[in-house]
Amino acid sequence: MSLTNVAVVGFGYWGPNLVRNLCELDNCRVKTVCDAQASRLNTVRRRYPSIEATQDWRDLLSDPEIDAIAIATPVSTHYPLAKAALLAGKHVLIEKPMACSSEHCEELIDLGKRQGKIVLVDHTFVYTGAVRKIKELIRSGEMGQIVYFDSVRVNLGLFQHDVDVMWDLAPHDLSIMIHLLEKTPVAVRAVGLTLPELKHTSIAYLAFEFDDAVIGHVHVNWFAPVKIRQTLLAGTRKMIVYDDNDPSEKVKLYDKGIKLATREDIYQTLVQYRMGDMSSPKLDQTEALLTECRHFIECIQGRCEPESGGELGLQVVRVLEAASESLRSLGQRVEVKGRMLSAGAAA
Amino acid sequence: MSLTNVAVVGFGYWGPNLVRNLCELDNCRVKTVCDAQASRLNTVRRRYPSIEATQDWRDLLSDPEIDAIAIATPVSTHYPLAKAALLAGKHVLIEKPMACSSEHCEELIDLGKRQGKIVLVDHTFVYTGAVRKIKELIRSGEMGQIVYFDSVRVNLGLFQHDVDVMWDLAPHDLSIMIHLLEKTPVAVRAVGLTLPELKHTSIAYLAFEFDDAVIGHVHVNWFAPVKIRQTLLAGTRKMIVYDDNDPSEKVKLYDKGIKLATREDIYQTLVQYRMGDMSSPKLDQTEALLTECRHFIECIQGRCEPESGGELGLQVVRVLEAASESLRSLGQRVEVKGRMLSAGAAA
Amino acid sequence: MSLTNVAVVGFGYWGPNLVRNLCELDNCRVKTVCDAQASRLNTVRRRYPSIEATQDWRDLLSDPEIDAIAIATPVSTHYPLAKAALLAGKHVLIEKPMACSSEHCEELIDLGKRQGKIVLVDHTFVYTGAVRKIKELIRSGEMGQIVYFDSVRVNLGLFQHDVDVMWDLAPHDLSIMIHLLEKTPVAVRAVGLTLPELKHTSIAYLAFEFDDAVIGHVHVNWFAPVKIRQTLLAGTRKMIVYDDNDPSEKVKLYDKGIKLATREDIYQTLVQYRMGDMSSPKLDQTEALLTECRHFIECIQGRCEPESGGELGLQVVRVLEAASESLRSLGQRVEVKGRMLSAGAAA
Amino acid sequence: MSLTNVAVVGFGYWGPNLVRNLCELDNCRVKTVCDAQASRLNTVRRRYPSIEATQDWRDLLSDPEIDAIAIATPVSTHYPLAKAALLAGKHVLIEKPMACSSEHCEELIDLGKRQGKIVLVDHTFVYTGAVRKIKELIRSGEMGQIVYFDSVRVNLGLFQHDVDVMWDLAPHDLSIMIHLLEKTPVAVRAVGLTLPELKHTSIAYLAFEFDDAVIGHVHVNWFAPVKIRQTLLAGTRKMIVYDDNDPSEKVKLYDKGIKLATREDIYQTLVQYRMGDMSSPKLDQTEALLTECRHFIECIQGRCEPESGGELGLQVVRVLEAASESLRSLGQRVEVKGRMLSAGAAA
Repeated sequence: MSLTNVAVVGFGYWGPNLVRNLCELDNCRVKTVCDAQASRLNTVRRRYPSIEATQDWRDLLSDPEIDAIAIATPVSTHYPLAKAALLAGKHVLIEKPMACSSEHCEELIDLGKRQGKIVLVDHTFVYTGAVRKIKELIRSGEMGQIVYFDSVRVNLGLFQHDVDVMWDLAPHDLSIMIHLLEKTPVAVRAVGLTLPELKHTSIAYLAFEFDDAVIGHVHVNWFAPVKIRQTLLAGTRKMIVYDDNDPSEKVKLYDKGIKLATREDIYQTLVQYRMGDMSSPKLDQTEALLTECRHFIECIQGRCEPESGGELGLQVVRVLEAASESLRSLGQRVEVKGRMLSAGAAA
Repeated sequence: MSLTNVAVVGFGYWGPNLVRNLCELDNCRVKTVCDAQASRLNTVRRRYPSIEATQDWRDLLSDPEIDAIAIATPVSTHYPLAKAALLAGKHVLIEKPMACSSEHCEELIDLGKRQGKIVLVDHTFVYTGAVRKIKELIRSGEMGQIVYFDSVRVNLGLFQHDVDVMWDLAPHDLSIMIHLLEKTPVAVRAVGLTLPELKHTSIAYLAFEFDDAVIGHVHVNWFAPVKIRQTLLAGTRKMIVYDDNDPSEKVKLYDKGIKLATREDIYQTLVQYRMGDMSSPKLDQTEALLTECRHFIECIQGRCEPESGGELGLQVVRVLEAASESLRSLGQRVEVKGRMLSAGAAA
Repeated sequence: MSLTNVAVVGFGYWGPNLVRNLCELDNCRVKTVCDAQASRLNTVRRRYPSIEATQDWRDLLSDPEIDAIAIATPVSTHYPLAKAALLAGKHVLIEKPMACSSEHCEELIDLGKRQGKIVLVDHTFVYTGAVRKIKELIRSGEMGQIVYFDSVRVNLGLFQHDVDVMWDLAPHDLSIMIHLLEKTPVAVRAVGLTLPELKHTSIAYLAFEFDDAVIGHVHVNWFAPVKIRQTLLAGTRKMIVYDDNDPSEKVKLYDKGIKLATREDIYQTLVQYRMGDMSSPKLDQTEALLTECRHFIECIQGRCEPESGGELGLQVVRVLEAASESLRSLGQRVEVKGRMLSAGAAA
Repeated sequence: MSLTNVAVVGFGYWGPNLVRNLCELDNCRVKTVCDAQASRLNTVRRRYPSIEATQDWRDLLSDPEIDAIAIATPVSTHYPLAKAALLAGKHVLIEKPMACSSEHCEELIDLGKRQGKIVLVDHTFVYTGAVRKIKELIRSGEMGQIVYFDSVRVNLGLFQHDVDVMWDLAPHDLSIMIHLLEKTPVAVRAVGLTLPELKHTSIAYLAFEFDDAVIGHVHVNWFAPVKIRQTLLAGTRKMIVYDDNDPSEKVKLYDKGIKLATREDIYQTLVQYRMGDMSSPKLDQTEALLTECRHFIECIQGRCEPESGGELGLQVVRVLEAASESLRSLGQRVEVKGRMLSAGAAA
């Protein structure tokens, strides 16, 4: 088994999770961690004495032993860091969102292709047992035609300085939605609220149109007293509630729906409910980031294609761009630019 | 104590609840129940042998003993029934929504004033222990300035023939929102979905602007696998989660918020969370409809003014009209017409 | 369809529910309600003007039109009232527990047989959709061999004057346990607590032995801050959680268990878990008391045998007697007297 | 700040948590990890390259640099390992339960005193924000007199080879109970069940008497489909529900109780409920094991006395011994031997 050497840039909130999971892999070695703050590097040295710690990210580029760089820095630095890494011949794993603009995403995708290097975007939820099981249920046809996707992701906290709540939280919901529905919305309307004295939008509602009858909706909120992570997904035959907070039964599949009947004596159509059993499938309990890190290394070692590659990262950013434009115009309908993701190309 | 004679028109879904609660009052007698379906009248006769049962609602108008009529019929009949009742000199309690158009609401309000009769709209939630406690908490100033109102009301069911999901479910959220915030939204954007083969919108998202920084949002849905009745209400000092499904702790008050700090060495404002205790106040457990029925009789007997009078009913309908127009235009911003409710005049 | 005339004695906490449900049946008429308190009879007259109201229960015995008497009075009066009713040729429905002593229960059973009259004990839970579904799951063999029955029934409230918490609450758990397991415990140990200044035990733990390896345990408590109604039932193949407080998914069936494996290289047996899906079956939503009342009338009219007849009532009382004796001896093992219920004779 | 060198023996289930938390402390260095299994030591080397790894625990005793040894090995080895460590002049942190017999616990306590070394037992729950807050609420007198302690700790899993479910799970509940009530039960009754083909008791109910009116009860179960970690604690004035599974509101304090009233016209005492608000205090979110590890180092460095010292460990083992004897006699009352813990000496 070959060994891939990885460096991690950024040891703030998410970086430590990347390092911890990469360290669990047999075919991977975390060679270097880079962060601008010396105190964080001290933590690295205490926890992982064998890992090199540096404040200068150019050390990573010039180290010929490093095969890949995982980028867990503020969003605005994703593009320059990833570009430099690719140009230096490194594979990249980029924290979500992929970049601040779709142009930058496209450039990174192209550069990855030209350099023959893997570009993986860290849309972690795609690798959860829950989302993988839901995708399986949709693909099997068991749910019928999907009718809507509704997601609520609220809690108190983690007000970001560099991005608003949409760019911070909605990438999770958008990556899940695009991955599950296997298509990108054609248009979005977004409204929101900036709290007094703050500069970024802290609460936002995003409503999506698709090129068919499906609708999508995402509510992201940094200013809520409780943590809610709940997605409703309705098909014409079955419906799902995906509650990421539920420790034991995250996915519940309801055999519920409506059936139409026509009573002959009257002209109107009768809507009746069909109420059946609920079941909660057993899910793979592996930490999603471990699955993702393993997948990243396997892509690098040539054994598979990224499930959350640059294309998914790009679609998410395109939707965010459209949502931002809509938010600025107080909810005007804004089309998502660029070609839509064709079915089956969700990676 | 004087005795008020009441008739109830409509013995379908809600009418039996009205009859049951009115029968509990000492100062009220249910004299007659009217319904077009003979089978329902048989149920009335079996349960309440002393109540007269009729298929002809004109019997109610011509009965001089009947002081008031409670109207629990399909929405389209509210206006003609209430108008006839008022003209016949009866007080009216009208099922929500008050009427199909704001013009009809205005006409009924005026007619009520001219006839000197009470017009009460059955916005039951206004009378719940939960909403009354929340109103008390807002009024006390304990929550600070209210920042947003977010309500989700979804379940599988009760597809109506005469109205869509907005006109069916949103009156609850709108009456609660207008009652608590003591103001009407100035504009609304609504998007939704009509399920295949059905004629009415079954899922809708309504986003509200107010004349200040507050925002409101309501998600109503007839096609969801689970019943959710949850409202988030955030103030600058405290926040509330109101979960109507929770049997014992419907209202939770969170001593949480943010505080802004400026670190001198850097230019940026720091957002920090303030996490304190949660408390769940004891609520009045009286069935809201009983409180409302008692209030209706007290208004008739001259002891108070309606808390959910025609004006609240009108505001709700005006918002619904604007929402319907927005829905037809796929989410265009539509202003709520008519003068706004001034603070303190929520009734 | 013949019409059975029923009288209800006792219009306190449970009596109104009996009257309300009996009134829903087409083949039954509530002719008379009897209660010693005049104010309660006023409530009867207001709600049900056609029902006769009396303070003297002997009026019921002497009324030849009355076919059956439902007894919802304090426990100590069950035996004399039921005996008098049976002697007067009336069928009886007796509130739980059936009587204060097993001798009285036996006498009522015998008297019922001699008089050819139905004796039904109001063990309402036996008629719930949840318990019926669980019984079906056990009988199908899907759960494997039942290993234990554990039930917790606690809340703040309803301190009774005439009985302790065991005689008040445990009849529910005991009737469910005996009905589901189709056998009566052979011995019981009970410990408990009497709150300062109160005369009755308010908290009790009952541990049961059966004639095989199964164990049972019941925790009943009047002095708890929250309402818990939860039963765990484990089989060798599947397990059930029955949460009576859950509005939508009362019964959850877990495809979980253990499997034993023997590793050859070491001598010890390995225990591994088997973790599978969970499913929550759709339940009949009919109010259990309505099902029971309908069943009572059908038994009277000769169409079936009581599912919760005197025999089940007797077994419950025998277990309570043994538990009371154990409680007095601070937890000594006390055998349940009398012959055990044989499988299939749970009614 | 002085630096304490610690070794950890046992890198199975709990050892990795000890190492991870000890590594977070500034005044502590994990010098060596010892485990009999080579594969586990490989994991140590990969995660913590600077930590020495050995299969021979005698290496720890002979290393003069090592000040303290944390013992996370099977229960039967606690006594010999701790004894050897103390004799070698090392402080010890011993995984719960402290030892297999109270004689061994007493010997270790004495040895610790003679050697002047710290003996800390890893009763982690004592260091949780939840238990510390509950202790504070009890001590403040706010709850009134404590009436009962009821704890349920069930789930599917982790069948141990060397101990039964009581010795595995109940130490948590017993340490919490003794720590909170500041006294040891005087007697216990235990009943349980050994699953077919297994050798250890998998389900047990323990009922405790104290030298006053308080009662305690613990239900531990390895064979349940769901994870329940719920403690009810009732005082004469307020009551607590402590749900360790609740991610955000583990401790709920209910202002509920009963009040006694005497109606003059009748002889009987009336019990009424007092229903007030519920509040959920903010808890310290620090990982309990980190608090405990920090405390252990501070005890070693002479700044405080163990909160969960050998005395608490001994009391827990004495209760377990009595419970085991009771279990063997099918529930006979067994007195807890040795002097009782005097109030305030819970450490």
